[in-house]
Amino acid sequence: MRTSIATVCLSGSLEEKMRACAAAGFDGVEIFEPDLVVSPSTPEQIRALAGSLGLSLDLYQPFRDFEGVGGEELAANMVRARAKFELMNRLGIETMLLCSNAGTATVNDDAVAAGQLSSLGDLAAGYGVKVAYEALAWGRYVNDFEHAQRIVDLARHPNIGTCLDSFHILSRGWDPGAIEKIPAEKIFFVQLADAPKLSLDVLSWSRHYRVFPGQGAFDLAGFMAHLVRTGYDGPVSLEIFNDVFRQTAEEGTAVDAMRSLTLLQERTAARLAADDGAARYPMSLAALPPVAEPSGFSFAEVKAEHPETVSTLLRQLGFEFGGRHRTKAAQLWTQGQARVIINGAGALEPGISALGLDVQDPLAAASRAVQLRTRRVPRETQADEQVLQAVYAPDGTEVFLCEATADGTAAWAGEFSADPGSGTDAEPLVTGIDHVNLSQPWQHFDEAVLFYEATLSLSAAAAQEVPSPMGLVRSQVMRSTAGGVRLALNIAPLAVESEPGGYPQHIAFACTDLVAAARQAAGRGLRFLPVPANYYEDLAARFRLEPDFLAALQELNLLYDRDGDGEFLHFYTATVGNVFFEVVERRGRYDGYGAPNAPVRLASQYLAAEGTLARKDG
Amino acid sequence: MRTSIATVCLSGSLEEKMRACAAAGFDGVEIFEPDLVVSPSTPEQIRALAGSLGLSLDLYQPFRDFEGVGGEELAANMVRARAKFELMNRLGIETMLLCSNAGTATVNDDAVAAGQLSSLGDLAAGYGVKVAYEALAWGRYVNDFEHAQRIVDLARHPNIGTCLDSFHILSRGWDPGAIEKIPAEKIFFVQLADAPKLSLDVLSWSRHYRVFPGQGAFDLAGFMAHLVRTGYDGPVSLEIFNDVFRQTAEEGTAVDAMRSLTLLQERTAARLAADDGAARYPMSLAALPPVAEPSGFSFAEVKAEHPETVSTLLRQLGFEFGGRHRTKAAQLWTQGQARVIINGAGALEPGISALGLDVQDPLAAASRAVQLRTRRVPRETQADEQVLQAVYAPDGTEVFLCEATADGTAAWAGEFSADPGSGTDAEPLVTGIDHVNLSQPWQHFDEAVLFYEATLSLSAAAAQEVPSPMGLVRSQVMRSTAGGVRLALNIAPLAVESEPGGYPQHIAFACTDLVAAARQAAGRGLRFLPVPANYYEDLAARFRLEPDFLAALQELNLLYDRDGDGEFLHFYTATVGNVFFEVVERRGRYDGYGAPNAPVRLASQYLAAEGTLARKDG
Repeated sequence: MRTSIATVCLSGSLEEKMRACAAAGFDGVEIFEPDLVVSPSTPEQIRALAGSLGLSLDLYQPFRDFEGVGGEELAANMVRARAKFELMNRLGIETMLLCSNAGTATVNDDAVAAGQLSSLGDLAAGYGVKVAYEALAWGRYVNDFEHAQRIVDLARHPNIGTCLDSFHILSRGWDPGAIEKIPAEKIFFVQLADAPKLSLDVLSWSRHYRVFPGQGAFDLAGFMAHLVRTGYDGPVSLEIFNDVFRQTAEEGTAVDAMRSLTLLQERTAARLAADDGAARYPMSLAALPPVAEPSGFSFAEVKAEHPETVSTLLRQLGFEFGGRHRTKAAQLWTQGQARVIINGAGALEPGISALGLDVQDPLAAASRAVQLRTRRVPRETQADEQVLQAVYAPDGTEVFLCEATADGTAAWAGEFSADPGSGTDAEPLVTGIDHVNLSQPWQHFDEAVLFYEATLSLSAAAAQEVPSPMGLVRSQVMRSTAGGVRLALNIAPLAVESEPGGYPQHIAFACTDLVAAARQAAGRGLRFLPVPANYYEDLAARFRLEPDFLAALQELNLLYDRDGDGEFLHFYTATVGNVFFEVVERRGRYDGYGAPNAPVRLASQYLAAEGTLARKDG
Repeated sequence: MRTSIATVCLSGSLEEKMRACAAAGFDGVEIFEPDLVVSPSTPEQIRALAGSLGLSLDLYQPFRDFEGVGGEELAANMVRARAKFELMNRLGIETMLLCSNAGTATVNDDAVAAGQLSSLGDLAAGYGVKVAYEALAWGRYVNDFEHAQRIVDLARHPNIGTCLDSFHILSRGWDPGAIEKIPAEKIFFVQLADAPKLSLDVLSWSRHYRVFPGQGAFDLAGFMAHLVRTGYDGPVSLEIFNDVFRQTAEEGTAVDAMRSLTLLQERTAARLAADDGAARYPMSLAALPPVAEPSGFSFAEVKAEHPETVSTLLRQLGFEFGGRHRTKAAQLWTQGQARVIINGAGALEPGISALGLDVQDPLAAASRAVQLRTRRVPRETQADEQVLQAVYAPDGTEVFLCEATADGTAAWAGEFSADPGSGTDAEPLVTGIDHVNLSQPWQHFDEAVLFYEATLSLSAAAAQEVPSPMGLVRSQVMRSTAGGVRLALNIAPLAVESEPGGYPQHIAFACTDLVAAARQAAGRGLRFLPVPANYYEDLAARFRLEPDFLAALQELNLLYDRDGDGEFLHFYTATVGNVFFEVVERRGRYDGYGAPNAPVRLASQYLAAEGTLARKDG
């Protein structure tokens, strides 16, 4: 499949956008006219830049408000078109996008529109260019692609064809199946956009909220399957108007875009295979090594200049020292199947730096991730060490792809050597890592969700919003179906994000008996995150709880939730640097994360941070 | 009128919220339950804090999902209610808000609901408290305030009454005129919220986009007029769920809130006077000194550590030195009625620091602004100097309220003494200040719009969005009807805002002959903001322009726009620090600001800034 992208998707100057598209691996770009108008480069310079970058210039867009007008206006529009065709010749662009008239049309007559398009085709033929007519979802008389196609058919001109845009078709609820009725040679161009389901007016929705395929609610694999069946084999291009992408560094956005288009090819191929069996079509679709969802967490890594700030908390939680790494400044702490590596190299303030996930085939998973434009983590290994596969998540977290073992042990753990006799025989209360909570930069949220879906087959649960004293926190859980891996991706309010340590991340451990675990931790001197007495009064009003149980919760700063499936008990430690820990007990089939208690946690952390700041100020 | 505000409107801890409300002058607050639940203060401590701050605790809220349920659930709800009534006694709060059941109701029967409310009233009576029943716009069976009122009437219980919320009434399009049918003694509480017109689902609209009265599209003066006519004289409280307010420093938000409620009282009084003449009602409404819209700009002030960086540009634009201030490190530059003061004290990088506006009665205008909770600018004056009235706009710009003179001269100008003979006799091309463009912090945008409306009677024009290489810029013009004062308030993309000088502000001068002014400026060596050749090619395609005229535009880096009313010519200077200048010529009745050309300006400034950064890096 020939991949293309409109320059309007990205931030920066036209030249910066083109460089980012080439670096991300696109075959071509659409030149968005306003990007050219404000560029100091001549058309010839842009053409030369594209050539040197190996990019084709696939489309000049948009040309607006042409057809359905009176004679005088048509003459002016032909003058405009001639100027743009001359410009296209200088740029070396063969196809122009013509949007259905949304502003100046006064004649609602397909025959008139077709005649005017035919005249435009004659003019275009003189310049050796083609015009792709597209039905805007808010076009005045033409807002349905089948209607646009009827006009193109009526025009019967070799230089006049169709542009299909998934947003304009799917946002209006038109049946994309009708695409299959269009002859491939009349489809001059295809633009793809996804979008979340919103009840906004379609123009605002289109101009601000489009996202890359796979980041919204449209069935784009289904759309693509219809397109492929026509025999179309031209460029498939992304045209995404998105307020966030417009202000995010263009290199990352271009990579996100290319990842979405690569994943879409896999999904389209799967759809075609399911529906059409072994049928073959002209368009070739990129294939990826398959990946199964990860079975669990192999480890989580915290970077800390002073490892003892973190290891103290872990020891108080019942973790045992599992040894030092042979060659790296790292130590391992374990309890049950929970493994935390404290990496003494790097960060001043403690923070989560890496996750290890158990996968069936680490090499295939890494290869898939790299084909999805994910950067590999460079890593030096000694001759006798495990070669671990690792890639960067969009927020910079290193994701290690570890080999799952039948007994849940970690193959890499042998690289850590403990002093003999440091272990105890007591049955551990903590059994493993339940979930990890990572804060995300607001600009990279959609990218992060798609990254975990595409590279690791995690699924997005429903998003939640949690009030904090500094604003709403948006939380999105990504999880494996079986629940072995659960990541909570949080966007902190802007005011918080900019403060160092303003929104800490955390690792939550699963345990079998929270009250016992909390008592032991208290006995070892753990600093719990304090929970206000008012919380327990409210709890008593909301749930009928045994007085002794309620008293134990309050004594130990434990939080409680209950739903139709079961109960959830949990507590938080104090924060060190940018990280804290949580211990959770799931009773019955409770499958949530104690969301009703999150505001208590955030408020207590806010007050604790204010206290810290006050102490620092004083 | 007794003013109140729900703590959910503000950021911070409960204690911080209460302090901010008291400082802004509110009479009382509503305690939003989740704020109390997460607070480490006991109810008794909160009560004592309110007492020491002089705040009444007007409402405990919300109590949810009570009525329309089966017997077992009702019993559990009565247990919940008893716990909250006990808590209210400890807090010293007399009224609880009960929202119509939106979650658990299964019985759609007014008699059943009324009976359950009556039982709740009996329980409440035992604690000496009252319950105010409110129809949520998304209530399961009850979502209309008249329906809620029928249930309250059926309940016939002295401790059961009504809470009216403007959002729940106006968002659903219910007729607020029906408020007048409710006896005042049954209205236990009133909550006000405004909101922009959105086509969102009503729950999301309510939870994220409410704004303070006067910042949205609802007719709240009309709503208030109906309320006042009932004879109600209890608290009128703001309950605003807003994602931005939640993450903005609470002190400023509380001031913004109080300003909106003060302005609303003036508008309500005007509505009542217009509709009901001299009728008198129990509720007293605060009055403000009236203000007429300003007639023009008296001056604009730029702060610059090195004044010559700015004065060089002004001299090149044809401005003349108008003298040094007698006592301050300030110099005056003038041309026609355009006056720019360069203040040498303070800021490292040049930037707009103050505006002078001509008003009819500066003392009354300043008094009005102060009553609208605006901070006065502290200013030392010598015995023989003008005492100028000045207040701070929300973005920190100083707004001076100057006395308008019949001949357009400035009374304060005598404080600047020029060397004799420095003036020339040539007729100036620049005649005055056309508009000023101020960038606004995104958190204070709604506040800024309301500030200029409330204190200076400026009107908001339709907002616009302008693409830049670093994101969309939102632009909102505030202007006087006659056009003598025009301010463009811009919100820069977040990525830009955080960079020093990333989004400069500017002063635009009106002139009578832009081509001549540009030629003279070029002759004096002015550095124009460069305009790319591609722009002029596009201009030629869009408008039929005389070749000589087009060549002159391109030669001089002039921009051009045309609409049905006239033509607009303008150019920009290079940026120094955070400020640049524009010169504009309006032909015919053109009343805009050349918005189609703004992307060209922003892209050229982006490239110029990159060049500057590159030079700094190199």
